[in-house]
Amino acid sequence: MFRSPHDPERMVVVPIQRLNGDNTSDDQDNLAVEEPLEIWLDDLPLAVIMRTPGHDDELAVGFLHSEGMLDGPKSIAALRWWRDAAGNLAENRITVQLHEAAHDVPAQRPFYATSSCGICGKASIEAVLALAPALETRLFPELEVLYALPERLRAAQHVFESTGGLHGAGLFDIDGNLLCAREDVGRHNAVDKLIGRSLLDGKLPLDRCILLVSGRVSFEIVQKALLARIPVIAAVSAPTSLAVQVAARANIVLAGFLRGRRVNLYA
Amino acid sequence: MFRSPHDPERMVVVPIQRLNGDNTSDDQDNLAVEEPLEIWLDDLPLAVIMRTPGHDDELAVGFLHSEGMLDGPKSIAALRWWRDAAGNLAENRITVQLHEAAHDVPAQRPFYATSSCGICGKASIEAVLALAPALETRLFPELEVLYALPERLRAAQHVFESTGGLHGAGLFDIDGNLLCAREDVGRHNAVDKLIGRSLLDGKLPLDRCILLVSGRVSFEIVQKALLARIPVIAAVSAPTSLAVQVAARANIVLAGFLRGRRVNLYA
Repeated sequence: MFRSPHDPERMVVVPIQRLNGDNTSDDQDNLAVEEPLEIWLDDLPLAVIMRTPGHDDELAVGFLHSEGMLDGPKSIAALRWWRDAAGNLAENRITVQLHEAAHDVPAQRPFYATSSCGICGKASIEAVLALAPALETRLFPELEVLYALPERLRAAQHVFESTGGLHGAGLFDIDGNLLCAREDVGRHNAVDKLIGRSLLDGKLPLDRCILLVSGRVSFEIVQKALLARIPVIAAVSAPTSLAVQVAARANIVLAGFLRGRRVNLYA
Repeated sequence: MFRSPHDPERMVVVPIQRLNGDNTSDDQDNLAVEEPLEIWLDDLPLAVIMRTPGHDDELAVGFLHSEGMLDGPKSIAALRWWRDAAGNLAENRITVQLHEAAHDVPAQRPFYATSSCGICGKASIEAVLALAPALETRLFPELEVLYALPERLRAAQHVFESTGGLHGAGLFDIDGNLLCAREDVGRHNAVDKLIGRSLLDGKLPLDRCILLVSGRVSFEIVQKALLARIPVIAAVSAPTSLAVQVAARANIVLAGFLRGRRVNLYA
């Protein structure tokens, strides 16, 4: 296994046996890199996320924002990469250091524990809406804009084409212009990277943007969009029941099975 | 949104707008149900998992087993479903009560914290191998057995066909006979349910079995297989770099892109 010369950070080349019917041949294949990232908040380890390396600062702050732990770029005092004893950069560990005042944001997930009716999808939705209220109005993009998104994201994706192993996510303005694209072995990570990039650039709230994901839409994807105030989510594949429910409550337009000139509107 | 009469636990019917070019029509669509499950270990909440309801006992014990917290059925004293104040069964909360002696198994993930070289894929692999040693020998199924697996899993999947929103996983014996199939909005959950079912039936270790997953293979899927002693993993889609590395170290045969009469052998 060695790093691909085309994209050494995110792609490796491995020897494989390719079987086709009864024939066997030795060959090579490109794989998406998966490595753990340990995210520290101030001086405590918070989470370990399996991710594709690259844009780790975006992933760290995007993850924290999606969990309701981070207000905006002004609450970040510093981002620190770690070094080992020999002084080499430790690639898989990053600290987000908050300003003193930012600690008013609770560092513990308030989810699920707050409900008097026990744990259920409804309680999960209420918990997310307690972190971020519903959007005030619905924003519908032009249909032709929606139809054009998947092809624009594909054109911007590098690794997926050669490995088939990455999820893609794209952030577009309401006219369908691609603002940012990210890929990752984790669906959630690709979205957190987009939101983290926007946060670091001072561009939150994303209240005139469209989020496109290459796969399915689960509850947590809608949660991330709501916290970033994204009014439209489009997906190439299916949403889950809870994704549709929380999107409806949050006034987020949810479009699924966006393929060619077809799309289903769920919320 | 209402429960589907075909599979009320796992499928809901929602009203949608179906857009095709410039045409709009009101229609219905089937969605996979996603709901949180809170897993308690003894008298402490351990994790909240977004999952498709059904087989929750399997998911709970499979999850604990995959994390190295559970040896086998004999370490389980009881499985408890919760009831609310009115005495109704709480569907989304389950407790796994261990026997006293089973508490020797550490209740905290030992991962990532043990490495002197910092956090990296290699440390993750060593941490998993500390939970469960590598298999002693490699087991190769017949090629024709491999080729037949995806069709057999598809034939056993109910919800996926109509929602496109579920991941499937199947457990087969080494001759390709389907032992168990599970579907879930979460890739990991479908595998945990299979392993949990086997554990509850006293069938671990699964050292003569093949695991087939409908999607991709990440590090954590290989971890789950290794803990259950499954010697062969087959996938319809791509593995990640770390999945291939840990499979190679663990003597697990890893087959990817299993489609028609083609397959790639990675480890």
